[in-house]
Amino acid sequence: MSDDRVHMTLDEVRDFARAILTRVGLAPDHVGAVAETMVAGERDGCGSHGIYRLLVAAHSVATGVVDAHATPVLTRPAPAILRVDGGGGFAQLAFETGRQALVDTARTQGLAALALNNVVHFAALWPEVEALVAEGLVVIAVTPSHAWVAPAGGTKPLFGTNPIAFGWPRPGGRPFVFDFATSAVARGEIELHRRAGRPVPPDWGYDAEGQETTEAAQVLAGAMRTFGGHKGSALSAMVELMAGPMIGDLTSRESMARDGGRGGSPIGGELILAIDPAGFLGDAAADEIARAEALFDGIEAQGARLPGARRHAARAVSLTEGVWVSKQLIADIENVVKENA
Amino acid sequence: MSDDRVHMTLDEVRDFARAILTRVGLAPDHVGAVAETMVAGERDGCGSHGIYRLLVAAHSVATGVVDAHATPVLTRPAPAILRVDGGGGFAQLAFETGRQALVDTARTQGLAALALNNVVHFAALWPEVEALVAEGLVVIAVTPSHAWVAPAGGTKPLFGTNPIAFGWPRPGGRPFVFDFATSAVARGEIELHRRAGRPVPPDWGYDAEGQETTEAAQVLAGAMRTFGGHKGSALSAMVELMAGPMIGDLTSRESMARDGGRGGSPIGGELILAIDPAGFLGDAAADEIARAEALFDGIEAQGARLPGARRHAARAVSLTEGVWVSKQLIADIENVVKENA
Repeated sequence: MSDDRVHMTLDEVRDFARAILTRVGLAPDHVGAVAETMVAGERDGCGSHGIYRLLVAAHSVATGVVDAHATPVLTRPAPAILRVDGGGGFAQLAFETGRQALVDTARTQGLAALALNNVVHFAALWPEVEALVAEGLVVIAVTPSHAWVAPAGGTKPLFGTNPIAFGWPRPGGRPFVFDFATSAVARGEIELHRRAGRPVPPDWGYDAEGQETTEAAQVLAGAMRTFGGHKGSALSAMVELMAGPMIGDLTSRESMARDGGRGGSPIGGELILAIDPAGFLGDAAADEIARAEALFDGIEAQGARLPGARRHAARAVSLTEGVWVSKQLIADIENVVKENA
Repeated sequence: MSDDRVHMTLDEVRDFARAILTRVGLAPDHVGAVAETMVAGERDGCGSHGIYRLLVAAHSVATGVVDAHATPVLTRPAPAILRVDGGGGFAQLAFETGRQALVDTARTQGLAALALNNVVHFAALWPEVEALVAEGLVVIAVTPSHAWVAPAGGTKPLFGTNPIAFGWPRPGGRPFVFDFATSAVARGEIELHRRAGRPVPPDWGYDAEGQETTEAAQVLAGAMRTFGGHKGSALSAMVELMAGPMIGDLTSRESMARDGGRGGSPIGGELILAIDPAGFLGDAAADEIARAEALFDGIEAQGARLPGARRHAARAVSLTEGVWVSKQLIADIENVVKENA
């Protein structure tokens, strides 16, 4: 590997992330939960969700967007429904606070929903989905973000990038997990084009006047498009509704208004549905879950790739060989922490 | 209106559909449930889901794909989970058999799932979604179909057209309901192109050799594409899994194998999730649901259309003025019934 990168074991990544988050002023229980998300990002080759996010987290703490000392509170307003009030803290500890109750409730009721309320989001949904799928559950997770995306037929920002994540347990191995933005591309992808001075395809978004543009900066200042035309737009609206008003939390437009120009991470809610196949099938569940393997075989037999395959391949390497991290990124992180100290 | 069409009130549509279904040999309780789907199709201006489907239903009865006398059986394998074994009959009566239990369970548990098993599908999902949304519930419904669609990255049929339907209750009016295929277009759309001898866009599908084609007949004999690239493909897989193995029922490939070349409607399962916002929010639910109106206003203020708007507009007319139906279609239906008598 080239000299501008440094080798780290995953334990070293964890220690580094924890040390930085602690110096930033995050409470110890938040530090542990947030650091694991970044370890998962580095482990799975998702650099944009690895320690790069320390910059984002530090900014949210420094600007007061997140409450660094929030204590999540779990309640059960209905037999199959759980809520965690995150108290304005990062989503990770709120999830950990509700996680076991969600697993237990899905097993006793057949399915259950967990709403995370009043949390700050900067991470992907797949680490949470994977944690639940490891318990043998089928999982859907959705969350709004900030108003950056135009509905199909419009050109002004209204929706968030509104990811949908889904997970399915597979016997003896890598679960089937996807997690994608309902926007045409991830916002970070446009940001990378802007930094590199590269044009973006004309179907990624609109400028602030609602005109097509290939300039990344104009799209960032204007509106992104949804993926898949009116269908992706409908799904994006579904995410807004289910993880917004349905759970008593903010839409992406409200999240952006709450941010008030501080440039912090999205604030609001997240909805996680967890379903126990044994609730439908009892003892036959394991055989039926195994039967789904024929579908995955049918996909791969065509040379098509399963979602998450790239992450799993990266994981197989990084678990034994560690990862390589940009020295410049580490220097940037150290500098931001010094500035905010 | 032109002379090749005949005017009917919706009551006349209902009477006609019931008479035909009875003559085809469908048991009386099935007749009532199936006819209502077709009335809804005509009422909402969806001709392809109106009495046109009498041809499809008659074919499924005549070929023995559907059991015309099946008696659905409701069970509750877990507190929040309901199953209806449709006994090989049409899905509509299976849905009606589980409908009230689903509503009641969602209200007491906060959310509930209804699996329809061993049913024959030829109708859209939105009539079922609307019926539940009218009870104040938020609803998701999915079902596989026959293996007609290639996964992204492949060119061979594996997935069904696998619709996803969603519904959200709106105060005092028209619910927000969408129902779309995860294929690039509906299969019926390609069929219409074939009949008219018109080419299809090259991104609708592949021929039997896996090559791009603009010939509708070649796509019908080959494979359709999913909408939205790998994201739509991932969602299609999700539908296969959740309304297939998760509920102990067929995937689209298994449905097609079960059909055995009879050309009948898809056989298998359907999954319906119903969520009561009051389960999260208690007495605050009505205010939060009303708060979602700002999202719909934000969509329409851009000149973008809400899903279902066209259906609601057609309904407003047809409820008072009735509908116009093709004389040729009625003659075709009468002929099919005579042939099968």
